[in-house]
Amino acid sequence: MATEPTERVRDFVRETVIPVEEREHGELHRPYDGPGIHPRERALRAELQDAGRDAGLATPQLPVEWGGLGLTALEQAAVFEAAGYSLFGPIALNIAAPDEGNMHLLLHAASPEQRERWLRPLAAGRIHSAFGMTEPPPGTGSDPRALTARAERVPGGWRLSGEKWFITGAREAGLVIVLARTSGEPGDAGGATMFLVPGDADGLTVERDVHTLDAGLYGGHSLLRFDGCFVPDDGVLGDVDEGFRAAQVRLAPARLTHCMRWLGLAGRAQDLALAHVTARRGFGARLADLGLAQQHIADTEIDLAASRALIRDAARLLDAGQDAGTASSIAKTFVAEAVGRIVDRSVQLAGGQGVSEELLLSRYWREVRPFRIYDGSSETHRWSIARRAVRAHEEGRRHDLAR
Amino acid sequence: MATEPTERVRDFVRETVIPVEEREHGELHRPYDGPGIHPRERALRAELQDAGRDAGLATPQLPVEWGGLGLTALEQAAVFEAAGYSLFGPIALNIAAPDEGNMHLLLHAASPEQRERWLRPLAAGRIHSAFGMTEPPPGTGSDPRALTARAERVPGGWRLSGEKWFITGAREAGLVIVLARTSGEPGDAGGATMFLVPGDADGLTVERDVHTLDAGLYGGHSLLRFDGCFVPDDGVLGDVDEGFRAAQVRLAPARLTHCMRWLGLAGRAQDLALAHVTARRGFGARLADLGLAQQHIADTEIDLAASRALIRDAARLLDAGQDAGTASSIAKTFVAEAVGRIVDRSVQLAGGQGVSEELLLSRYWREVRPFRIYDGSSETHRWSIARRAVRAHEEGRRHDLAR
Amino acid sequence: MATEPTERVRDFVRETVIPVEEREHGELHRPYDGPGIHPRERALRAELQDAGRDAGLATPQLPVEWGGLGLTALEQAAVFEAAGYSLFGPIALNIAAPDEGNMHLLLHAASPEQRERWLRPLAAGRIHSAFGMTEPPPGTGSDPRALTARAERVPGGWRLSGEKWFITGAREAGLVIVLARTSGEPGDAGGATMFLVPGDADGLTVERDVHTLDAGLYGGHSLLRFDGCFVPDDGVLGDVDEGFRAAQVRLAPARLTHCMRWLGLAGRAQDLALAHVTARRGFGARLADLGLAQQHIADTEIDLAASRALIRDAARLLDAGQDAGTASSIAKTFVAEAVGRIVDRSVQLAGGQGVSEELLLSRYWREVRPFRIYDGSSETHRWSIARRAVRAHEEGRRHDLAR
Amino acid sequence: MATEPTERVRDFVRETVIPVEEREHGELHRPYDGPGIHPRERALRAELQDAGRDAGLATPQLPVEWGGLGLTALEQAAVFEAAGYSLFGPIALNIAAPDEGNMHLLLHAASPEQRERWLRPLAAGRIHSAFGMTEPPPGTGSDPRALTARAERVPGGWRLSGEKWFITGAREAGLVIVLARTSGEPGDAGGATMFLVPGDADGLTVERDVHTLDAGLYGGHSLLRFDGCFVPDDGVLGDVDEGFRAAQVRLAPARLTHCMRWLGLAGRAQDLALAHVTARRGFGARLADLGLAQQHIADTEIDLAASRALIRDAARLLDAGQDAGTASSIAKTFVAEAVGRIVDRSVQLAGGQGVSEELLLSRYWREVRPFRIYDGSSETHRWSIARRAVRAHEEGRRHDLAR
Repeated sequence: MATEPTERVRDFVRETVIPVEEREHGELHRPYDGPGIHPRERALRAELQDAGRDAGLATPQLPVEWGGLGLTALEQAAVFEAAGYSLFGPIALNIAAPDEGNMHLLLHAASPEQRERWLRPLAAGRIHSAFGMTEPPPGTGSDPRALTARAERVPGGWRLSGEKWFITGAREAGLVIVLARTSGEPGDAGGATMFLVPGDADGLTVERDVHTLDAGLYGGHSLLRFDGCFVPDDGVLGDVDEGFRAAQVRLAPARLTHCMRWLGLAGRAQDLALAHVTARRGFGARLADLGLAQQHIADTEIDLAASRALIRDAARLLDAGQDAGTASSIAKTFVAEAVGRIVDRSVQLAGGQGVSEELLLSRYWREVRPFRIYDGSSETHRWSIARRAVRAHEEGRRHDLAR
Repeated sequence: MATEPTERVRDFVRETVIPVEEREHGELHRPYDGPGIHPRERALRAELQDAGRDAGLATPQLPVEWGGLGLTALEQAAVFEAAGYSLFGPIALNIAAPDEGNMHLLLHAASPEQRERWLRPLAAGRIHSAFGMTEPPPGTGSDPRALTARAERVPGGWRLSGEKWFITGAREAGLVIVLARTSGEPGDAGGATMFLVPGDADGLTVERDVHTLDAGLYGGHSLLRFDGCFVPDDGVLGDVDEGFRAAQVRLAPARLTHCMRWLGLAGRAQDLALAHVTARRGFGARLADLGLAQQHIADTEIDLAASRALIRDAARLLDAGQDAGTASSIAKTFVAEAVGRIVDRSVQLAGGQGVSEELLLSRYWREVRPFRIYDGSSETHRWSIARRAVRAHEEGRRHDLAR
Repeated sequence: MATEPTERVRDFVRETVIPVEEREHGELHRPYDGPGIHPRERALRAELQDAGRDAGLATPQLPVEWGGLGLTALEQAAVFEAAGYSLFGPIALNIAAPDEGNMHLLLHAASPEQRERWLRPLAAGRIHSAFGMTEPPPGTGSDPRALTARAERVPGGWRLSGEKWFITGAREAGLVIVLARTSGEPGDAGGATMFLVPGDADGLTVERDVHTLDAGLYGGHSLLRFDGCFVPDDGVLGDVDEGFRAAQVRLAPARLTHCMRWLGLAGRAQDLALAHVTARRGFGARLADLGLAQQHIADTEIDLAASRALIRDAARLLDAGQDAGTASSIAKTFVAEAVGRIVDRSVQLAGGQGVSEELLLSRYWREVRPFRIYDGSSETHRWSIARRAVRAHEEGRRHDLAR
Repeated sequence: MATEPTERVRDFVRETVIPVEEREHGELHRPYDGPGIHPRERALRAELQDAGRDAGLATPQLPVEWGGLGLTALEQAAVFEAAGYSLFGPIALNIAAPDEGNMHLLLHAASPEQRERWLRPLAAGRIHSAFGMTEPPPGTGSDPRALTARAERVPGGWRLSGEKWFITGAREAGLVIVLARTSGEPGDAGGATMFLVPGDADGLTVERDVHTLDAGLYGGHSLLRFDGCFVPDDGVLGDVDEGFRAAQVRLAPARLTHCMRWLGLAGRAQDLALAHVTARRGFGARLADLGLAQQHIADTEIDLAASRALIRDAARLLDAGQDAGTASSIAKTFVAEAVGRIVDRSVQLAGGQGVSEELLLSRYWREVRPFRIYDGSSETHRWSIARRAVRAHEEGRRHDLAR
C-alpha cells in the first residue's frame, strides 16, 4: 500500500519538514496580541507551504483538475499518515485542519461558482479558512441541535447573528464557513443552513483567542461574533435549512483524515521513544531490553496497527461509496484514545526528558489531548455507537456490521 | 466482503447449529473415565459434521481438489467468523482447532504421499488429529527452544520418547503430529523435527486428561507419553532438524483462524447481551438506554471492529504472500484480549443471568479465557513484538510496518 | 493490626482448611438432583465447621455472649481476610455468606425472642439460612423498588406470594429471610417488609437450582416460590413497611465482609502465582524475573494494598458509628474489580496450568466473577456513587468525603 | 480525621490562595532569561508565604520548636491534601517540594549546628533549597547506583565535580543538597555522600533551565554544574559513603507528601468538573445526569478514596515507626497514576473548555504528568514492588504485608 506518493511524502517530511519542526520546537501557533496572525507564524506557514509546493506534494487528496494527485481515501490514509509524522507535515502539504475538510466540503457540496471562488485559492494555499460550528454554552457543542446562531432573511440574502468559539484559523481567514439557524428553535433537529462568509465581511469580528493546550493549528482558536453580518444568497452552501445534512458531507471524511494525521504523529512518538530507550541504560541493561519498557513498546505497536487497520477499513467503505458513518465514528473514538495512550507511553519511556522540551514528546503530548474532545468527544461517539448497535439489533441487522 | 459462502454459513449456523448448541448447553467435550471419547461427545461431533457436509459447507478453506471452496485468507476471515458465531459452528464445518491448522500444515509442508494418507481423511472428517508440541515443565511451553522430547535414529526411522501435555484431541486421534528433538539440547534454537504419528502407534499412550476451563474442543486436552515409539522415515514431515521452520508454516495462519473463530463468538456474546438489555428494565428505563450499559455496548462494538480490521489486514498479507508474522502476532494479542473483554462485558450486562447457565454467556466466558494463553501467551507475544520493533528501529525499517 | 486471632486463623487455615480444600479441588457445592443437599456437600460442611469450633475460632465477629470474640469491624477485616485465604475458610469459621450477614441483621434488627430463636442456632452452626431479595424479571434485581413479592394481611399474620431466585443456601435452610411488599406497587420506593420464614414452612418451595459459575457457597443458588405461605406476626423483622430500611442494616456491613473474604482469596491467588513463577524458567531466566511477569506481580500488590486500605477505612467508619454507605459502596466496587483482575493475572502468570485443574486458580477465577454482579453490580454502585458526588457538590459538602 | 488545622487550611486556601491562583492562571514559575528568578515569580512566592505566615499555618508539619504544629504523618495527610487543593497552597504554607522534603531530611539527619544553619531559615521561608540527585545520562536517574558526580578529598573538606539536572529550585537557592560519589565507581551500590552546599558557593553554576510541562514549582528545573566546588567537612550530611542511606530518610516521607499534595489537586479537578457538568446541558439532560459522565465521576470518586486510603495506611506505618518503604512505594505508584486519570477525566468532562485556559484544568493536567516519572517512575516502582513480593514469598513473609 506504500504507494509512490507515500514514499515521496515520507522523504520530504524527513528531509525538509522535520528540520523546521525541530528548529521551532514544534510550535506553529504563537499567541499574539496584535491584529491578525503573529508575523513569525505567518512566515513559518509560508515557508512550509512553499516547500510542499516545490516538492509537488501539495493537496495530494484533491482531484487532478484542482491541482492534486487524485488519491483514493485508502491512498490518502498512507499519505496523510506519512505527512503527520511531523506536526508541520500537514501544513506543508496544505492538508491540515480545517482547510482540508473545508476543501472536501466545497468539492462535494458547493456550486461550480462557489468552488471557483473559494476552493481555487484554498487549494493553491493563497488563503486559509475556518469552520464555524461550535458555540459558547448553551449553544451547540457535542449536541448539534443546540444551535443558537441565527440567520434572518433580508432582501438578497441573510443577516447572521450569534457567537462561535474554538474556531480554528479564524484570524486572517479568507473564508469562514458558518452554520446558523434559518428556522426552528435551539433543540430542534433541523433548520440549520451553511453559509460561506468572507473573512473580512462587515459584522464579523474575532473577539479574542481561546487559548488551548495545542499550538499546531494555524491561527489558533478564536471566539467570533456575528452582528447582523450580511451574506448574499450565493453565499448559501447547499440548501437552506439543510445545513446539518451538508455538515454530514464533511463529517465522516474529516474525522478520518484527522485520524490519519494523528496516527502519523503517534508513530513518530514511538520512534522518538525507541531512540531514547535504545541509547540509554539502567539497572544493568539497555532500557529497550527491560520488560517494563517492552510492555509499553508492544502496547504501542498494537495500538498503531489497530488504528491503521480501522482507518483503512473505513476508507475502503468511503471508496466503495458505502455509508462510513459508524465505521468512522468507531475509528475516531479508538484512534483518538490510542494516540493519547501512545504519546503518553512515549513520554513515560523517555522519563524526565519526556516531560521536558529536550525532546518534542511533551509538545506532542499536549497537541493530541484535544483530539478526544474535538470532532465529537469519545463520550458522544460511544453514546451514538451504542444506540446504533441497539437499533441494528432490534432491526435484525447486526451481522451487516461484519461486512 | 460478505461473500455468498459467508451468508450460507450464517444461515446454516443460525438454523442448524445453534439449536444443537442450546440443547447441549454449549458443552462439546465431556470428561470421561473410559478409554477414548465419551460416546455422547462422539455422537455430537458426528451429528454436527454430517450437517455441515449435507449443507455443502465443510472445510471451505481447502482448495477445491481437497473438497473445499478454495477461499482466500480474507474470505476465510468472514466465513470463519460466521462459523464461530456458535461454539459448535467450527466443528460442524470441520474447521475447528487443531484439525484446521493441521490440514493447513499438511497442505503446505507434506509430501504428496503424506497428504494423500493424512489430509484426505482429515478433510473428509473421517479422522481427527492432534498437534503435540507443549511439554510439562521444564519442557517447551512459551519458549519453543526448551523442547525436551527426543527422537533417536534407528534403522528405517526414529524412536520417540518424552511427554507432551495440553494436547488437544489426542484421544482417538487418527494422527498425532509431534515435535521432537533430533539434535541439540534443550535450550538450543534448532534441532527439532516434526513427525506424523498414527494415533494408535505402539509406544504412544494417552496418560490422562488435563481438565481445563474450556469444553469446546473435541476430545479435550491430554497428557501423552512416548516410550520409544517407532516412526518410519516417511513419517518425517519436512526436513530433519527443520521442525521449528515447519512449525512456522502452521503458526501464523493458525493464530489467525483462531482469531476469526473467537471473533464470531464475541459477536454472539454481544448479541446475547443486547437481547437481554433490550428486554429488561430498571431504574425507570430500558437497560439498553442506561449510560453505563451504553458504555459497555460501545466498547464492545469498538473491540469487534478493531479485531476484525486487524484480522483482515493480516489476512491480506497472507494472500499477498508477504510475511504476516508480526501482523498475526499483533492480531492474536489484541483479539485474544478483546474477545475476553467482550465476553466479560456481556456477562456483566446480563447481570445474575450472565453468571448462570440460563444463558450461554457463562459458558463462553470460560471458553475464551485460555485463548490469552494458548498459541503464545499475550506476554510472549508482547515480548516478541517489542523486540521486533526495537530491531526495526535499529535497522531503519520502522516505516515498513505502515504498509 | 495482626491481632492474635488473625494469626490463629491464619495457622488454622493453612494447617487444617487448605488440605481439605485441595483434597476437594475447591468444590463445596455439588449439583444434586435429589431433595436437599448432596450428602457429600453436607458432610464437608460439617467437617469444616467442627474443625473451626474445635479451634475455638467460630463466628469470631459475634459478641462474646453469642459465642464470638467480639471483634470490631477493623479487627474483622484482618480475621476475615485470613479466613478467606482458602475458599473453605469462611465455612469453617461459620462466617460465610449469607449466614454471616443474616446473623448481623438479626443481631441488630431482631427482637430478643427472634434472636434467641434464630441467631442462637445460626451462631452455633446448627442451622444455616438464606436471604430472599432478588426476583426473576421484572422483579427486584439491581433496583430494589421493583419488588413484586407480596404479603397479604391475614388474621394473626401474613400470607406471602411470589418468586425469588439466585437465593443462596435455600436448600435445607433453617431460616429464610424474605423481603415482600406489604403496601404500594412495584416501582414504589417504600412498602417493603422483612419476614423470618422457617425453611420448612408450608407454601415455600425450592423450585429448582440456578446453576452458576461458582461452587463455593453452601447449597448453591435456588429459585424459590411462595404460594400463600403463612408467616405469623412475630415473624416480622423490624417494622411493617420498613423492610428497605431494615435491609440497610445488613447492606453496608455485608458488602464489606464480602470484600474481606474475597481479598483473602486474592492474596492466595497471588501466592499460588508466585509459587509458579519462582519455580519455572523460560527465555533464559526464572519467570519471576521477567519484566512482563513483574508487571503482573506489582499490579497485584498494588491492587491488594488498595483493596485492604479501602476496606479498613470503611471499617473504621462503622466502628465509629458513622455512615459507611458511600465508603462501603466504593470499597465494594473497587475490591470486586480488583479481585477479578488479581485472579485473572494469577491465571495468566500460571500459563496453561492456570486454566487447568492442576492448580486451584481456575476454580478461584470462576468463584470471584459473580462478585462484580452480586450485592449491587459495579454499574449500579457507580451510578449511585456519581449521584452522591453530584449531590454533595450541590450541597457544598464535597470536602466531607476527605474525612 | 478532619482536625482543626485541616479546616483552617481549607478555609485559608479557599479564601486567600485560590483567588491568587485564578488571578495568575495557575502559573508560578515563569521562564526567565535573566539571572536568578523572574521578579514576578519571586514576588508571587513572597505574597503567598506572607499570607500563610499571617494565617499561622506555615510549615505545620514541623515540630513546635521549629515553628510548626507538630503534626503526625496521619494528620499531615489531611492538612497537605487541603493545601494541595490549590496549586499555590503548598507554596503558601511553605510545604512545597523540594523544601518540605529537605526540611524533613535536615530535621532527621543533620547535626544540631547544621539544623540551626539551614533548617532555621528554611522553616522561616527566608531561603529556599534544592535537592541535587538526578544527573544527565549516563548518570543517576531511575537507578541511583549510576551516580557519577564525584567528591574528592582535599584538606578540610571535599571538592565536588559533575553535573545535575532537573534540579528544582536551584536558581537563587540558599542551600543545595547534593549527592556525590566519595568512593566506588558508577554502578556500585555504595560510596555516595550527601553534601550541604550554599547556593552561592564558588564552582557551582546554574548552566541553564530544563523547561518542562509543569510550572508549579518555584524556580523551575535547572542544569547545574559543579567544577571543583569546595565543601568543608561540616558540610557533610550524615556519614561519608552513607549518602544512599541518608537519602532513604528523605525518600519514603517525601513520596508520601507528594501524594498528599497531588491528591488535593485531584479533588479540586473533580470539583471543577462537577461545577461544569452540573451547569451545562446536552442531549436533553443535565450533563451530570448522563450515564457516560456518571462513569467518569464515579471512577474519580473511587480513585480519590483509594488514593487517600493508601496514603493513610502508609502514614500510620510512619507514625508507628515501622518500615513504610513498600507501602509508600505502592502509594506513590497508585496515586501518581490515579491523579493522572482523575485530572484527565476532569478535562474530558469539561469538554472544549477542559483543554482551554478558560478553566484551570488544562494547567493541572500539565502539572500532574511528571509525577508518574519524578520520585521514581511507575516502572521503577513496579519493578521494585515485584522484587519485594517475590523475595517475601521466598522467605515466607507474604502475610506480613497484610498487617
